[in-house]
Amino acid sequence: MAKRFEIRLAGSGGQGLVLGGVILAEAAAIYDGKFATQTQSYGPESRGGASKSEVVISDEEVDYPKATNPDVLLLFTEAAFQKYLPSTKNEAIVIVDEDLVQSKIPPNYKNVVVAPLTRIAKEGVGREFVANIVALGLIRELTNIVSEKSLETALLGRIPKGTEEMNKKALALGKEAAHKYGNQLLSKKA
Amino acid sequence: MAKRFEIRLAGSGGQGLVLGGVILAEAAAIYDGKFATQTQSYGPESRGGASKSEVVISDEEVDYPKATNPDVLLLFTEAAFQKYLPSTKNEAIVIVDEDLVQSKIPPNYKNVVVAPLTRIAKEGVGREFVANIVALGLIRELTNIVSEKSLETALLGRIPKGTEEMNKKALALGKEAAHKYGNQLLSKKA
Repeated sequence: MAKRFEIRLAGSGGQGLVLGGVILAEAAAIYDGKFATQTQSYGPESRGGASKSEVVISDEEVDYPKATNPDVLLLFTEAAFQKYLPSTKNEAIVIVDEDLVQSKIPPNYKNVVVAPLTRIAKEGVGREFVANIVALGLIRELTNIVSEKSLETALLGRIPKGTEEMNKKALALGKEAAHKYGNQLLSKKA
Repeated sequence: MAKRFEIRLAGSGGQGLVLGGVILAEAAAIYDGKFATQTQSYGPESRGGASKSEVVISDEEVDYPKATNPDVLLLFTEAAFQKYLPSTKNEAIVIVDEDLVQSKIPPNYKNVVVAPLTRIAKEGVGREFVANIVALGLIRELTNIVSEKSLETALLGRIPKGTEEMNKKALALGKEAAHKYGNQLLSKKA
């Protein structure tokens, strides 16, 4: 892996992006033995419900914990798209919830996955709010930044009792979505 | 308030320090209109269950989100005491759970609050795991870094339905503990 790998999860409050970031960081550090940080930054825009959760994973101690040049950008609202895409490098993997973001990704972005993650969560397990977990499964499958086992273990350590099966299903749906909607990236990786 | 105010919550996984940090940061930014960041840093020590959650609150955008020189240090394990106290300035407010930390705070620290926060949680609401919320109530009362109303609102936005009364009680117990165990600091402030 790269020395430093940055993931930015951007959307609105209530979409579980903070929890998603915590699970990813714990998977990397506690279970995969890497270094990781997970950061939320809040400013005046947070009042409008904007939410941003960032994870930095590294083989070395993470000096600067904010994502300055994300390798993965997850966009869960149109506002997040408008705010964060322009500063994101063209090589980044950009993941867009197709029902929540109206704008099209410009063609200079080559690693784009457009998938109905929230709809997948709703139709697959009956709960929109596990769209964050579907996204984690998809990000993992696309990047291999944490192991499958670590992600599942970290997930199970952070969710309410009684929701284990639903959450494991959501992870699996994310993996499936990576193959269905991001297959061009997986072939590239292979 | 100071331009930049740093809070470090240190203990072990399962003590709810991540959630505590998130609630504090959201109280400051979403409800009090300040800037805030909340960061977890994980390294190899996380495997032993160590957990550290940091909040930076500022009137301006937070450039560096890690706590480099905490104004408040909460210590919820002996290991956290050993690891974080030595690098903490003597003027910091140091809050120690007296049942979880055996060592005594050296006399060069002048703003020390030793209180049985976990026991207060258990005896007051029947649940040890709301000790993090008791700690938030205490920190708020000692520092006034967020408003009472904002902290309660942020808290209610982050906890499971049905636990509102228990959590509000935990906050109130923390406030009470500030007067019982930290009265020397409150008199200084007044």
